[in-house]
Amino acid sequence: MKHRIEELSNWLQQEDITMSFLTSTANVFYLSGFYTNPHERLLGLCVFQDQEPILICPNMEVSQARSKGWEYEIIGYSDTDNPWSMIQASLNKRNITPTKIAVEKEHMNIERYEKLQELFGNPVFVAAEEKMHLLRMVKDEKEATILRQAAELADFGVEVGVNAIAEGKPELEILATIEYELKKKGINQMSFATMVLTGLKTASPHGKPGLDLVQKGDLVLFDLGVVLDGYCSDITRTVAFGSINEKQKEIYETVLRAQKEAVEASKPGVAIGSIDTIARDVITEAGFGEYFTHRIGHGLGIDVHEFPSMNATNTMLLQRGMSYTIEPGIYVPSIGGVRIEDDLLITEDGVEILTSYPKELQIIK
Amino acid sequence: MKHRIEELSNWLQQEDITMSFLTSTANVFYLSGFYTNPHERLLGLCVFQDQEPILICPNMEVSQARSKGWEYEIIGYSDTDNPWSMIQASLNKRNITPTKIAVEKEHMNIERYEKLQELFGNPVFVAAEEKMHLLRMVKDEKEATILRQAAELADFGVEVGVNAIAEGKPELEILATIEYELKKKGINQMSFATMVLTGLKTASPHGKPGLDLVQKGDLVLFDLGVVLDGYCSDITRTVAFGSINEKQKEIYETVLRAQKEAVEASKPGVAIGSIDTIARDVITEAGFGEYFTHRIGHGLGIDVHEFPSMNATNTMLLQRGMSYTIEPGIYVPSIGGVRIEDDLLITEDGVEILTSYPKELQIIK
Repeated sequence: MKHRIEELSNWLQQEDITMSFLTSTANVFYLSGFYTNPHERLLGLCVFQDQEPILICPNMEVSQARSKGWEYEIIGYSDTDNPWSMIQASLNKRNITPTKIAVEKEHMNIERYEKLQELFGNPVFVAAEEKMHLLRMVKDEKEATILRQAAELADFGVEVGVNAIAEGKPELEILATIEYELKKKGINQMSFATMVLTGLKTASPHGKPGLDLVQKGDLVLFDLGVVLDGYCSDITRTVAFGSINEKQKEIYETVLRAQKEAVEASKPGVAIGSIDTIARDVITEAGFGEYFTHRIGHGLGIDVHEFPSMNATNTMLLQRGMSYTIEPGIYVPSIGGVRIEDDLLITEDGVEILTSYPKELQIIK
Repeated sequence: MKHRIEELSNWLQQEDITMSFLTSTANVFYLSGFYTNPHERLLGLCVFQDQEPILICPNMEVSQARSKGWEYEIIGYSDTDNPWSMIQASLNKRNITPTKIAVEKEHMNIERYEKLQELFGNPVFVAAEEKMHLLRMVKDEKEATILRQAAELADFGVEVGVNAIAEGKPELEILATIEYELKKKGINQMSFATMVLTGLKTASPHGKPGLDLVQKGDLVLFDLGVVLDGYCSDITRTVAFGSINEKQKEIYETVLRAQKEAVEASKPGVAIGSIDTIARDVITEAGFGEYFTHRIGHGLGIDVHEFPSMNATNTMLLQRGMSYTIEPGIYVPSIGGVRIEDDLLITEDGVEILTSYPKELQIIK
């Protein structure tokens, strides 16, 4: 964590910013190791150019922050305290008068923004998001280890789901079975709302699982991930229940080919946009271009969607430590949809595929 | 929904506010009937003093908004559109120049706030929260019907949980069984992270379920609720597994007495603060005052915590249509904790208890 705070301090120096004041669960966790969501209560992390950082959290969470290794100042407050004046007092003691503050402009609400304006006499505010995205984009070995374990649990989730498929079973029952088995392994948070879709609902990339029943001839699509030690996994697999028709098979094989080519092209130095293009070209040449309606993937880490964005116009180069998904899909409203998604980690000279549930077409009898 | 928009328009007139620009899922749903969470994409609802309102949402959600009965203007935008200039164009066409805007200051982020400042040349911003809280606080008959059904499903969740108790079973497995059975009934969202706590963990009001095993002599605490058609329920029950000791029984009976007295005191015209005081007095007289560490309850509706706040200093009077929880608890670190919680709805001359799972001490063999 120390190294991360140093990197942020260096940026503050370069940009002549007095301090960053970050309040999102994800960024506070990244910099402090302390993962918490205090809802409407204030959580904050002040990082300075060359003074030690300060963590702000409810009193009842102070010991947990300490147990995660936070060795710097903590401002712990009770429900009757005013944490804002405690922050001001602490900065006064350090002779710090913020004139330029980096905050999460997409996260901090107006109420808190006005509090900071009032507290420090209308300082200049700049966005901290891009810097934090860039810092978090490159994973270290400890993060890689957690991402691997999270991906394994996602594999397990798909396995449970595929095994639960049976004629006439509702989507939500299969979904419930997956989450039940994952909870038994100690998982108490999914990366996002688990998706189990059958039949023509697979053609909707944002479809909502319901009481629709699995029928012979259906495609069944699973999209799920777990949160493990603060990090997310994200896998999609599509299987066939009973025999599927030639068109469905063609769609499946096209998505699979596109997915594999995009995975194989992944290595340091390759432009991110080209990864999207490689997969899109395969799908377009097969005549399904108009049905691949989203980007090839997204960065993966503390947030299930983070940097880098894996879209066709991203000119950034892949580099060691980047973690992201490759998830092409074809969605034909009258036929159904197929998406296949893996989690990847760029290594020194290539790529490690973190998810490993089989991708070849599986026909469930 | 028309009536709700009229009430908001009246307020805008009284306060001389050009328009409200609301972006939270809950408030947009309350005013439009359209429930959606577009994550980082913009969702917005402009209400004016005497012009028809405007809904702003992604293109792909327009038909869903219409299907929920929204008959006024919709600004639907694609990912390549700029929704902000579309809003500006629409207001220009109506000859509206906002000089004072009501926004959700605890919800809207700085990025959007700056966009509005820029778009309309630094208008005055006021907080919309309190007005919206007051509007939503009084439930109509349609809302009451949903709250009743949501409470019934919460009862069912506790029943499943109590039936799943067995020696050596982990908390998370019991929790998974509850959510599994609720998913099978079509519930795809809980009001909050379901809580199943055993043994001394029951003494922690914000304890986190884990792989701890149920043992004979344990108190087992369930706290859960479902989201049904946009409305939340919230129930807590504590049961004993095997025989519990006299002190645990004493705590249970004290909480039960406090809970019942607070429920019985609930009727129109009673000061909210007195409901907290009635329960607190029972617990204090029994010698456990220091272990009842939170307010007696909270309002319940689209948000699981909303107006009115059921705390001792609230001088507001209960009125017909208010919906809230009564949930006293005693948490003794060395013995364990007990909390009993019902959902209530104030009627014309009394109170309706929405949750109905038995409250008398249950000893599971």
